[in-house]
Formats: sequence, C-alpha cells, structure tokens
Amino acid sequence: MKEKESALVCFSGGQDSTTCLYWAIENFASVHTVCFSYGQKHSQEIEVARAIAQKANVSFEVLDVSLISQLADNSLTNPTIAMDETKPEDSLPNTFVPGRNMVFLTFVAIMARTKGIRNIVTGVSETDFSGYPDCRDTFIRSLNVTLNLAMEEHFILHTPLMWLDKSEVWELSDQLGIFELVQNETLTCYNGIPAQGCGKCPACELRQSGLESYLNKKTNI
Amino acid sequence: MKEKESALVCFSGGQDSTTCLYWAIENFASVHTVCFSYGQKHSQEIEVARAIAQKANVSFEVLDVSLISQLADNSLTNPTIAMDETKPEDSLPNTFVPGRNMVFLTFVAIMARTKGIRNIVTGVSETDFSGYPDCRDTFIRSLNVTLNLAMEEHFILHTPLMWLDKSEVWELSDQLGIFELVQNETLTCYNGIPAQGCGKCPACELRQSGLESYLNKKTNI
Repeated sequence: MKEKESALVCFSGGQDSTTCLYWAIENFASVHTVCFSYGQKHSQEIEVARAIAQKANVSFEVLDVSLISQLADNSLTNPTIAMDETKPEDSLPNTFVPGRNMVFLTFVAIMARTKGIRNIVTGVSETDFSGYPDCRDTFIRSLNVTLNLAMEEHFILHTPLMWLDKSEVWELSDQLGIFELVQNETLTCYNGIPAQGCGKCPACELRQSGLESYLNKKTNI
Repeated sequence: MKEKESALVCFSGGQDSTTCLYWAIENFASVHTVCFSYGQKHSQEIEVARAIAQKANVSFEVLDVSLISQLADNSLTNPTIAMDETKPEDSLPNTFVPGRNMVFLTFVAIMARTKGIRNIVTGVSETDFSGYPDCRDTFIRSLNVTLNLAMEEHFILHTPLMWLDKSEVWELSDQLGIFELVQNETLTCYNGIPAQGCGKCPACELRQSGLESYLNKKTNI
C-alpha cells in the first residue's frame, strides 16, 4: 500500500542507496533522486546512478558540492592519499569527510522544500560502520529536528537500512525484487569497478561477505 | 581577560558581524574570519569585509557556497525579484533563503575543525527578525548538538547578539571602541551602499532607528 506522498532519495548508485530507492518506490506515490558530486575519485559512480534511476523511471539530479573537498583532505577526494578503511582503535577511517552527510542532507532538505516534498530517504546505517558519526541514528534524529527548526518544516528523514547488516540489506533487495539488479548494476567498490567490484577493498569485502551470509541463510530455510 | 582559545567568526562586513568580530577579539586569544559568497547581488560586501578584517589584523577567507542559489529563488540572489522585507502575517520575508544559515554554519564548523578551533561566533539575533527561523536561539542550540554529533566534536556556537536589539548592538560596538568604525566602514544596506546606506531599505531603517535610539539613551544618561 503506497502512501500518497512524494519522497526524495539520496542516491549514489551503490548497493545501499539502490535498495533505498526501490524501498521508496514501494512506499511512496512519487519518487525523486539526487546524487552528489564532490570531487570524488570515481565520478563514473554518477553515471552508474543515472542509469539505475532511468531504469527505475524516477527523476535524477546531480548537485555539485565540491566545496566540501576544499575544506578537508582525505582519501576519498585526494588521490595522493591511499585508501585505508582499516582504522586504528578510537579513530575514524581516513575515508571520512567530517560533516559530509550533514552537508548533503541539508542540501537535500532545501531541495525537497522547493519541490514540496517532506520525505527524505537516505541509506545511512550504523550497523556496519559505526566509525562514521554522521551515519548514526542519534545524529540523524538530531539533524531532523534541526532541519525542521531551520526551515519551519516537517521533514521526515527515513533510514530504512539503519539497523540492517549487509546480509539483511541483500535480503531486503531480494524482497523488493531487485536482487539481480543490485548484484549486476550497482557500484560499491572503492576502486570504481561496478557489480562484484575489485573484490579486495573493504567495501567489496563487506558486500561479498554479506552476500554469502544471505545466500547461506536463504539456502538453509 | 582573554581566553586562551581561538575563534572563527562568520563575517560579512555588516554592522552585526563587525560587532561580533570585535567581541571575539576581546574574548579570544586568536581570531579568524570567514565570509560567504553565494551569488548575492552586492558582492562588494566581500571587499568591505576584507578591508575591515585587514584593519582588525585577523585572517580572512571567502567560501563559495553559490550552490545555495541554485536551490531556491529569492530576492537576495535573484535580481528579477524586488526586495521586500515587509512580510504578510504568517509568512517569511522574501529575502529568506531557507536553510541558508544552517548551510553556512555547517561549512564554518567543518572549516573550524580543520583549524583545530571549537569556538564559532555568529551574529544571528532573534530580537529584530523573528521571521528567520534559522536565526533563532532554539535553532542554534539544536544545530550545536547536531554539529557535535555529526563530527564527534565539542563546538561551541557563540551568539553575542542573540538577545540584543539594534540599539543595544550600537551600544556594544561603542563599548568595544568601534562605534565610528561601524558607522563609517560597515555595509548593511540591501542596496549595497556602505556606512549610512540608502536610508530607505528595511536594513537601513532598522540600523538608523537603532542608532537614534542608542544616541538618545546615551545623551540622557
């Protein structure tokens, strides 16, 4: 049963946001997507996202927030720094751009307001990457309040993946009928290789181990 | 007595932020300023700000956040819309860019973090312009929490003008020894005329009536 409202989805063309996109299509009458360009190494990510949005028949916009890479050097935007998501205890992985999600979601809210949309969907999860403070549930709830105060609006931030591990994200994509689409057409790999990816970076390892875990579970039911 | 800490001041070269700048110089050991460029009609505002910062011997940086004018049309950034700060009951003045202060302050916090600064000073006030939700004390406090959660930091947002009316802002500038500097070198006017300004726009009227009120008070003491 669809709500009669519209939703704006933060969409990068990865496994998580593609699952969120189809979750939104399932739950809202009208769905729009926005993708962020911020000087990331792998700008083909944007073309992957565009192709998925076209196939899903939803609107697709790209917002340039490259200012953010002027503000903080890190490995996702600075090609001279090696990727390394293994992090020392008590510190953040060096792919972390401090405040990145906060900037993105604030722009999304401004955009949503101009479209008359109050539902915003983001694929953040605190289950696998608790190292990112701006992916945590408490942050999202605080941000929701702050956005509503900032604009006198009633935005609702939806985080369908917040409490799911990667295996459960695969399960959700299967329930939504997009298991194969996620497997074959999304881009999660830090080295910019779609579908199964390089198989070696932390994003690929997480995606693969989640997939194996889900397939094991499915076989044993 | 100065604290031993540094502060980053949101600085536009207007009466309010100039007063905040000197308040910060009075209260912190080291002061930095940041000015926002967002496609506003009156870009000479930036040169006015730069000159004041140079005179005050503080660092000055300009951040381009012009993306914000792609997101919402309004009279401050769109020359085809007439300035009109008189607002109908229950609506916002049309100079309002929804979420503008939230975007600015989030960028300032990201910048402050890269400089190792936790004190952020902004001239927002809910006394004269309660029409702007993102100038209100409740919003600022909520934003402070959200920023700290987003970045696992301990930012302190300082709003020395929050509860002052324009007359009291003049009084503060007098106490700080910058009454004449504010009178002669700041730019508040919506029509881009420094010092006394055009005398007709709402910003000039507010500045002028505050000045008269303060001078009356001062004379009668």
